[in-house]
Amino acid sequence: MNGNSIGKALVLTCFGESHGPCVGAVIDGCPAGLPLSVEDVQTELNKRKPGLTGISTPRKEEDQVEILSGVFNGHTAGAPICLIVRNKDVESEVYEQIKNKPRPGHADYVAYLKYGGFGDFRGGGRFSGRVTATYTMAGAIAKKLLRFIGIGVLAHTVQIGKVKIPKNVTYNQIRENVYGNSVRCAVPESAVLMEKEILKAAEEGDSLGGVVEGVALNIPAGLGEPIFDSLDSDIAKMLFNIPAVKGVEFGAGFQVASLKGSENNDKYIIRKGKVVSQTNNAGGILGGISTGMPIVLRVAFKPTSSIAKRQKTVDLTKMEETEIELAGRHDPCVVPRAVPVVESCLAFVLADHAIRTGKIPHVLETKK
Amino acid sequence: MNGNSIGKALVLTCFGESHGPCVGAVIDGCPAGLPLSVEDVQTELNKRKPGLTGISTPRKEEDQVEILSGVFNGHTAGAPICLIVRNKDVESEVYEQIKNKPRPGHADYVAYLKYGGFGDFRGGGRFSGRVTATYTMAGAIAKKLLRFIGIGVLAHTVQIGKVKIPKNVTYNQIRENVYGNSVRCAVPESAVLMEKEILKAAEEGDSLGGVVEGVALNIPAGLGEPIFDSLDSDIAKMLFNIPAVKGVEFGAGFQVASLKGSENNDKYIIRKGKVVSQTNNAGGILGGISTGMPIVLRVAFKPTSSIAKRQKTVDLTKMEETEIELAGRHDPCVVPRAVPVVESCLAFVLADHAIRTGKIPHVLETKK
Amino acid sequence: MNGNSIGKALVLTCFGESHGPCVGAVIDGCPAGLPLSVEDVQTELNKRKPGLTGISTPRKEEDQVEILSGVFNGHTAGAPICLIVRNKDVESEVYEQIKNKPRPGHADYVAYLKYGGFGDFRGGGRFSGRVTATYTMAGAIAKKLLRFIGIGVLAHTVQIGKVKIPKNVTYNQIRENVYGNSVRCAVPESAVLMEKEILKAAEEGDSLGGVVEGVALNIPAGLGEPIFDSLDSDIAKMLFNIPAVKGVEFGAGFQVASLKGSENNDKYIIRKGKVVSQTNNAGGILGGISTGMPIVLRVAFKPTSSIAKRQKTVDLTKMEETEIELAGRHDPCVVPRAVPVVESCLAFVLADHAIRTGKIPHVLETKK
Amino acid sequence: MNGNSIGKALVLTCFGESHGPCVGAVIDGCPAGLPLSVEDVQTELNKRKPGLTGISTPRKEEDQVEILSGVFNGHTAGAPICLIVRNKDVESEVYEQIKNKPRPGHADYVAYLKYGGFGDFRGGGRFSGRVTATYTMAGAIAKKLLRFIGIGVLAHTVQIGKVKIPKNVTYNQIRENVYGNSVRCAVPESAVLMEKEILKAAEEGDSLGGVVEGVALNIPAGLGEPIFDSLDSDIAKMLFNIPAVKGVEFGAGFQVASLKGSENNDKYIIRKGKVVSQTNNAGGILGGISTGMPIVLRVAFKPTSSIAKRQKTVDLTKMEETEIELAGRHDPCVVPRAVPVVESCLAFVLADHAIRTGKIPHVLETKK
Repeated sequence: MNGNSIGKALVLTCFGESHGPCVGAVIDGCPAGLPLSVEDVQTELNKRKPGLTGISTPRKEEDQVEILSGVFNGHTAGAPICLIVRNKDVESEVYEQIKNKPRPGHADYVAYLKYGGFGDFRGGGRFSGRVTATYTMAGAIAKKLLRFIGIGVLAHTVQIGKVKIPKNVTYNQIRENVYGNSVRCAVPESAVLMEKEILKAAEEGDSLGGVVEGVALNIPAGLGEPIFDSLDSDIAKMLFNIPAVKGVEFGAGFQVASLKGSENNDKYIIRKGKVVSQTNNAGGILGGISTGMPIVLRVAFKPTSSIAKRQKTVDLTKMEETEIELAGRHDPCVVPRAVPVVESCLAFVLADHAIRTGKIPHVLETKK
Repeated sequence: MNGNSIGKALVLTCFGESHGPCVGAVIDGCPAGLPLSVEDVQTELNKRKPGLTGISTPRKEEDQVEILSGVFNGHTAGAPICLIVRNKDVESEVYEQIKNKPRPGHADYVAYLKYGGFGDFRGGGRFSGRVTATYTMAGAIAKKLLRFIGIGVLAHTVQIGKVKIPKNVTYNQIRENVYGNSVRCAVPESAVLMEKEILKAAEEGDSLGGVVEGVALNIPAGLGEPIFDSLDSDIAKMLFNIPAVKGVEFGAGFQVASLKGSENNDKYIIRKGKVVSQTNNAGGILGGISTGMPIVLRVAFKPTSSIAKRQKTVDLTKMEETEIELAGRHDPCVVPRAVPVVESCLAFVLADHAIRTGKIPHVLETKK
Repeated sequence: MNGNSIGKALVLTCFGESHGPCVGAVIDGCPAGLPLSVEDVQTELNKRKPGLTGISTPRKEEDQVEILSGVFNGHTAGAPICLIVRNKDVESEVYEQIKNKPRPGHADYVAYLKYGGFGDFRGGGRFSGRVTATYTMAGAIAKKLLRFIGIGVLAHTVQIGKVKIPKNVTYNQIRENVYGNSVRCAVPESAVLMEKEILKAAEEGDSLGGVVEGVALNIPAGLGEPIFDSLDSDIAKMLFNIPAVKGVEFGAGFQVASLKGSENNDKYIIRKGKVVSQTNNAGGILGGISTGMPIVLRVAFKPTSSIAKRQKTVDLTKMEETEIELAGRHDPCVVPRAVPVVESCLAFVLADHAIRTGKIPHVLETKK
Repeated sequence: MNGNSIGKALVLTCFGESHGPCVGAVIDGCPAGLPLSVEDVQTELNKRKPGLTGISTPRKEEDQVEILSGVFNGHTAGAPICLIVRNKDVESEVYEQIKNKPRPGHADYVAYLKYGGFGDFRGGGRFSGRVTATYTMAGAIAKKLLRFIGIGVLAHTVQIGKVKIPKNVTYNQIRENVYGNSVRCAVPESAVLMEKEILKAAEEGDSLGGVVEGVALNIPAGLGEPIFDSLDSDIAKMLFNIPAVKGVEFGAGFQVASLKGSENNDKYIIRKGKVVSQTNNAGGILGGISTGMPIVLRVAFKPTSSIAKRQKTVDLTKMEETEIELAGRHDPCVVPRAVPVVESCLAFVLADHAIRTGKIPHVLETKK
């Protein structure tokens, strides 16, 4: 039943259910001496807040972070940091019907089997997207650690439903535009089309999926511990723990299958006295180790499982086929809110490996 | 530097370099009482043997497995099982040139940086595809464990270069055809086209990538330990540790991004008194837990990095741009040999989780 | 910096500082379906409460447990359980002097070095005996799990200062007497002497150590995973994480050094159709595996480091020798309060191994 | 069934049975660039070789180490190092009788239960003291790593049977004398008495236990990761995995129970501009962290379970009481051969923590 911790040098332990008292994270292994305030974490949490834009769930959560341990005099103390967010605006009644009628596309049915009916089913319980608030809190700390060694992490929406961005956005475009529109897209014109697409699906009582790209810049070469703690495998593992993710690819990704070696190989050249590669089909990782080129990955999100449309399901007590119509409050598309979560997950794994390889020291500065 | 173990209940520790004395695996956590012979492992190893078909590397390895521990009187003893394969047909001389001239697409350069020049570079050393022989040995044991509870694991080539199989192969087609042709394809007509494609690339001194599909049948519901040891995240982590993998997707995979919720949700129905789903876009996993439907996943392989064509690179001692032409013996396409490796990796993770959840007992039968 | 989790099937992650907002525990891997209430945990916590008896610290903590996650409808849900206890009666001012003058026998100085001066030093921070409240909370759950399979765990004081109990107490004596006196001793007459000893030391501004014996009854044979997760090594590891522990021994312990093999070997006999041993010098563990005989161990506690007497120390800012006189509120002897902690630690490791070997199932009963 | 790996930064995975093909160790996480030869390991292995002195088992093992991976051009390569020692002089026939008649004091009976009769019982199989050859091989590497940062590790026999050394040996005495006599004792006069004691016990067909002291010098302050990976708890865990160990204590150990705080506290003073403590009752560890003072610990070993005397046991097939007389070849006292094993175990844990805290870098020197 265990399995709620991840990371080797920086370890995230996550707890809490959607409609329980809170969701929380214990971050163990954070170096001492990192300046850390409630605001630092709150800023990141706010990026995934529900109820912001009219295209996401009307559930209003303040999502106010509380630091329970590990921070002393405004700095991390070298002790485990526990952060929680209380659950406030919960409507548990509407979930009574799913107790015996599993929602298609959700984990209700398998959770029922696995936990013998004892699992907290309200709002999806432990399987709610709400757990990603804890990834974001951990990500807030990870990002501050990475900035200490100059690494920047970005993410942006590259596809929602059938709308894709036109190719080639620069890192600056991402930085400048991504939080300027409701769909977290680096191309403002595409953002408009994506919003429309979501609103249309919402009107139909339906939902949309999409693709988020994650990028990490200024990465030192050498992160990743092959064979089995290779950087890509650890990043992929973390990303597949975001609910709704069905695919992860690095660099040229699935396209690589139809390239020839002579096309796909990133040739080495020298620029400004440094070895770099002409292209980056590898997405910044070779042999499970960061090359120093930007890490580039894409994550496929399925459309929100909760839809307003009537759907077939079964009644588990009567063991007969029936239908279900969901009245709860849901995002017609989780992709925009997933953007900061992808950022956080990528940052967390990079910080874990940066500590593990000694690129981030155990004490960030000696106190006077 | 550590990171060469994977799994929680069934743990694989892997060692050995391409041109060292051997490659080996320690499998810890295998229940006692499983009948296990050298032949059981050898059969699986033979599936990925090089030099079989004219379309793979001319390197001739006997790949004869040796059991060093953990097996007593023809059964597993409840102790760690160490299996090794000696390296015999090694031509290390041709690798002298890569010492200072990293091969594009390979891990040479990052390994050089990470291990301070101490790494064994011969044949890619620790980064050689040869390490997957150890995954296959572990997979041989995992498959036998899974058969004990009726689980079957299959894999097959669905794409090589630009040749894809036409849709919809049955599990029987995979079972019957996949090891009947050199490219491990379930569709004989596609196999012919794929072979041609590889031979053509080989003639050009070039290489091809492709996609392998993995399938697991008769899976009990309930495998996987969310949040962080979810079944898909653990399978993905294992698969990304196969050299050359650049993408992993489950069920509808990246296509899911352009589906609507009403299209993508797998509706529950009752068939023969059991709850099943009408479709399997989830690929057999919801909320990180197996649903009981077949697990279906696809893995993207990049074209072999080693090609005969002259390529740009840098001389690390002189820090100047140069070129490299590789004389070594390489597969023009690793995909066919990756098929048993994908099978093994999938089997390994399933066996780990089946033990972890108690579906496979700690002692398989009581000895008289 | 990480290292705040322990256990493999049942995992305890611990956070919080003595004078921070709270101390807390995340218990991951607890089977679903265990009835669990605030009272269950509170009862155990109360056993180690400070301020009970006049022989312990006057610090008054309500030590009221709060369940933040993992319990639903009065049962464990199969999700991680977070339990916290708020810190209320803190007097942090008196700790200002130790900031630069490390207290002899405490971790102040090494913590200062290790965490670069960023560690929370108030009340010993992370090194306070207060963290054992989290062991006790985890122990409360572990004990309930063990009772499910009939295992009972006891502990009692066998020595305080120079007062030892006369030999041979029965398990019933422990059960009946241990919480009936302030020193948690199974022999009432010894308890009186021990109390006197403590009061005398307290009057002198000094402190005492002692020895606690832990016992586990009705243990199934087969717990423990050699070589490295042997039952004794895992129990010892857990016990050495209780502050002030300097020695751990099993069965005949250090006495074994002067016994002959013929004296020490526990001979097998048959009683009521079962194989048992005539003696239990092994303390219930052979080859790292439980034999089915009672597990018996002893833990040596050093005298409380905080004493009222003036002591030599150094001023770290001036790098000169000085003296320190501690005004804080401390137990003159931690041994009595350590009794429930030893119980909890022993219970935790046994529950971890009982789950790991499948003796405790993943779901405790199927819900109707 | 798993549990054959230990360590977090430096990980030892151990395999092999007493009468199988070999015993072996995989050491994962060793920094690249450490000069390492077969001789380096052989030297350490030779210290625990059987058959040396007339007071140990007549079993003659060459114990010739073979390096299977991880070493390249005379240096560690940053890859896992696999070392094996073949088993040569095995007499398995004599073990037929113990198949159904468990030897008192051995793990035979619990192993039989745990592994359902499938375990390799010959020579104790996985429970043989022979597995400590793998600890010694790992220790050889650990000691070389520690020497890189100036740490020295020693061990010596302080008690055999009822013979104890007179107090106060210096580190130089240990260094000079310990391998100069057959019982690994730093006091030559005591060594003579101890030898006699062993020979007497051997003549009687009996066996003796004893106590080994381990010491580590020139330790940097700051090793250890509290709460749960504290240095003492990790060392204790490792030591309890040596067969026959029944107790572990640090510094003043069990004596601490009868000391007062004012006697036990190690006062800080300044010597040569450095903070040190006047005494070392803590044994070099406070709060689970190394203080910089020498680490001092003692380990209690029980008398060898295998004795020539006839002993009571049971016949498991007939479920009746019977007797057993052991004809195998055994050490009448394992303590002398345990000395290098204690050294190795202590060194291994220190090296693990030294890497983990960054005191030993990931690459030991940059290759030209």
